[in-house]
Amino acid sequence: MANFMDIHNGFIGVTELQLREAIGRDLAVEAAEGVHFVHAWLDSESGTVFCLSSGPSKEAVRRVHDQAGHPAQEIYELSAEVEEPPPVVRPDLTGAAVSGTDTREQSP
Amino acid sequence: MANFMDIHNGFIGVTELQLREAIGRDLAVEAAEGVHFVHAWLDSESGTVFCLSSGPSKEAVRRVHDQAGHPAQEIYELSAEVEEPPPVVRPDLTGAAVSGTDTREQSP
Repeated sequence: MANFMDIHNGFIGVTELQLREAIGRDLAVEAAEGVHFVHAWLDSESGTVFCLSSGPSKEAVRRVHDQAGHPAQEIYELSAEVEEPPPVVRPDLTGAAVSGTDTREQSP
Repeated sequence: MANFMDIHNGFIGVTELQLREAIGRDLAVEAAEGVHFVHAWLDSESGTVFCLSSGPSKEAVRRVHDQAGHPAQEIYELSAEVEEPPPVVRPDLTGAAVSGTDTREQSP
C-alpha cells in the first residue's frame, strides 16, 4: 500500500456539496481496486481538486477516478510526509511579570 | 483565515529528513506572517512537494516560502474540503449467523 496525491482540473465554481458528490462516486467504486480516498481539497476559483488516497498503485487510483467519471490529470506517489499540528498557544505572561511586584531595590 | 495548498517542484531525490528540514525553515519564519504549515507531502521521484497551510492570504504563504528559501511554484486558496476516514472493517458475521442456533420452528 502506498499513498497518492492527485490533481483534477475543470472544477471551476464547484460547491462543497458537489465536491462531496464527486468523491461519493469514487467511494462507491474504490473497494474493487483496493483504493481509499481519504481527503480532498477544492479551489473552486481555479477549478483545481487535490485528492489524497491510499492504494496498491498509481494505476489503481487512476482506474477508480476514471470509473467515477472524473479522470485525474496528474497522480503522484508519495514517498514521505510531515505533519505539524497547530502550534500551542501559550498565554502571554509578559504583562503579568511586568505588573507583578518587584521586590528588588533599585540601585541609586 | 483561509487554507491553502501549494506546490513546489525540484525536490527530486529528497529524503524525509530533508523534507522535515525544509518545513522547519518555514516553521521558523511563519509566525510573523500569521501562517501555519500543517502538512506536507513529497513525491521524491518527480520532485514534487505539496504543502497544506492556513493563513491570512496567498501572498502571506508566498512570503513565508520565499523567506524559507524555497519559493512555491503554485498556491491555491481552498474553498472546500472533504475528509473520509478509512472505512470501518466489520468482522464477517455471515458464518456465525449460519452456524448459530435457530430456535424458530420451520413450517411443515
